[in-house]
Amino acid sequence: MHSSEVFNFSAGPATLPHEVLKIVQEELLDYKGTGLSVMTMSHRSKTFLDILHEVENDLSQLLGIPDDYAILFLQGGASLQFTDIVWNLSLSQKRQVGCVVSGNWSKIAYQQISKMDLVSTQLIATSECEGQFLDVPLQKDWQVDMPLDFIHFTSNETVHGVQYQTLPHQLSHDYPLLVCDMSSDFLSRSIKVQDYALIYAGAQKNIGPAGVTVVIVRKDLLGKAPNTVPDVLNYQSHFKKDGMYNTPNTFGTYVCGLVMKWLLQQGGLSQMEKINTQKAHLLYSTIDNSGGFYVNHVHQPVRSKMNVVFYTPNEKLDALFIEEATQANLKFLKGYRSMGGMRASIYNAMPLKGVQTLCEFMQDFQQRYE
Amino acid sequence: MHSSEVFNFSAGPATLPHEVLKIVQEELLDYKGTGLSVMTMSHRSKTFLDILHEVENDLSQLLGIPDDYAILFLQGGASLQFTDIVWNLSLSQKRQVGCVVSGNWSKIAYQQISKMDLVSTQLIATSECEGQFLDVPLQKDWQVDMPLDFIHFTSNETVHGVQYQTLPHQLSHDYPLLVCDMSSDFLSRSIKVQDYALIYAGAQKNIGPAGVTVVIVRKDLLGKAPNTVPDVLNYQSHFKKDGMYNTPNTFGTYVCGLVMKWLLQQGGLSQMEKINTQKAHLLYSTIDNSGGFYVNHVHQPVRSKMNVVFYTPNEKLDALFIEEATQANLKFLKGYRSMGGMRASIYNAMPLKGVQTLCEFMQDFQQRYE
Repeated sequence: MHSSEVFNFSAGPATLPHEVLKIVQEELLDYKGTGLSVMTMSHRSKTFLDILHEVENDLSQLLGIPDDYAILFLQGGASLQFTDIVWNLSLSQKRQVGCVVSGNWSKIAYQQISKMDLVSTQLIATSECEGQFLDVPLQKDWQVDMPLDFIHFTSNETVHGVQYQTLPHQLSHDYPLLVCDMSSDFLSRSIKVQDYALIYAGAQKNIGPAGVTVVIVRKDLLGKAPNTVPDVLNYQSHFKKDGMYNTPNTFGTYVCGLVMKWLLQQGGLSQMEKINTQKAHLLYSTIDNSGGFYVNHVHQPVRSKMNVVFYTPNEKLDALFIEEATQANLKFLKGYRSMGGMRASIYNAMPLKGVQTLCEFMQDFQQRYE
Repeated sequence: MHSSEVFNFSAGPATLPHEVLKIVQEELLDYKGTGLSVMTMSHRSKTFLDILHEVENDLSQLLGIPDDYAILFLQGGASLQFTDIVWNLSLSQKRQVGCVVSGNWSKIAYQQISKMDLVSTQLIATSECEGQFLDVPLQKDWQVDMPLDFIHFTSNETVHGVQYQTLPHQLSHDYPLLVCDMSSDFLSRSIKVQDYALIYAGAQKNIGPAGVTVVIVRKDLLGKAPNTVPDVLNYQSHFKKDGMYNTPNTFGTYVCGLVMKWLLQQGGLSQMEKINTQKAHLLYSTIDNSGGFYVNHVHQPVRSKMNVVFYTPNEKLDALFIEEATQANLKFLKGYRSMGGMRASIYNAMPLKGVQTLCEFMQDFQQRYE
């Protein structure tokens, strides 16, 4: 079996809606009669500022972002935010940051924050067990018994395929601020923004091309970074200059905006959540109903709806699966280097049909090699 | 008079070669038969890695980059490099950085470096005079009489339209390391890379879309950043992982690569230098031969070949000039906010015809309003 359409299961940079790419292509040489490409416009031109404001408005509408939050489109990926959140949100003298480790990315965040000068980190919870992450530490088990400037956690882990299905939230007024890396499930479901001091997300999973990082931060927390922090790393500089402190990734931000319009057209986040749940259910069912031919080891209640990790009975078959799937136009299914096996990333832009085609391929492959 | 073609004189994000934008458009939905857009490919896919290596090779060929230099495609713009160079190149205990100020950008760099912890800056030369920059401080006048970890200077200043026509260089073996911000004249002329410890350039002037920053750094200087510097800001992390420490701006880098192929097709940098000199000569001649109707105040030998600043006899006429020029499809000629007047940015991708059309418009405008 072979799909005539190419389905791209890359963990990121990931697939984008075909409709969006079509618009990008159509407008590439001439954006709405201006005779210019968005790529070659001044970031201070009215045309680009209009694009940016529309992206902000559409994002606000999608997520229900209250007015007391700032929206920034920055660069550097989630990896730069590991550092930037500390400089911007270390509000007390002690600069104590609580870290929750639930997989590869939150562990890197913990390590990177721990390296920094004048900060102390507290590992308040981890689900690591013999080098594996098959679960996430539930919020009730976090050790929040010391003063913390904020707690950092990652809502979905792309490498290990685990995800908070019930998102940690602001438990009480005295509870430490929550900072969430939502890179890999941003805009895939409804959330309550008010629960977080700051949310950040690299664009290249669910919302656009690599090179754009969205930061949503409570305005009252801005302006508290020490003076020694360079302006470019101070959220306040970007906020005060309406996102024009320095030249943003204009073209990438424009593409993110098209994705947001597409999400609104699909019915917004509650509708996306429904479709994403359906896609994940279909794929996990195919695994679970394979009589053990395919396995996923993640604790069921925290299986990721974005990144589905699975294995055949042996590495040789895994390699064959990937080879044949690639030939069948089901691309980038190879698991993360340290994990082996397969990983299907099924973000917002992966159509239901792509997952159906993958499931059919899996059943066919099983019949032939069981 | 009215040009049927749109010419975009934006200082950045700036115009890109039409041929390049055509290829971007053609390949947008299907890159060379892969069925995928470059925008949606994994940065670790063979296809993207091949693109990246080709960009590196083409850049090496264009600039003549020796093997003992690393080439990195990073994010965050020149503004992030102001900081990053200090963390990576403060090689001595004293961390003393010499700054040359020749315009808006080098002044911001000086201010930002001065803010940082544990670094002392020395203003070793400035051409600022009553808030204006009409000249650049020649290297022979720099005060290099104390130990310096490195000297930072900016080869071309976009706001003030001044440019080093003879580039500062490594005067002797004992001379401090030179670090150059080449954002706005990168690849516009031949240079000797060996003269510099590090060169950086935001892409959005001469080489591609905003959101990509090229860093060329001597390999023996890598790995000397303090341990407390986050990995994402340590050049060594990016170099050791072949540019894949974190997800790069894949699509932007691909577009930069197309521009480099275009530059090679044009005949390389010596040919670009010839054309750029011709364009600048044409425009400055039009100004100088206007009998004082148009003026440019910059000291003649350091007039920028990239950004040509000029004024009519009064602000009202300046505004009218910009208005009529815009209607005539000569866009983004408005001067920088603090400067007023006009600024024509005529980077590599601005065709000779664009400058000719502007000059004809200027003569026509003068006849009508003198």
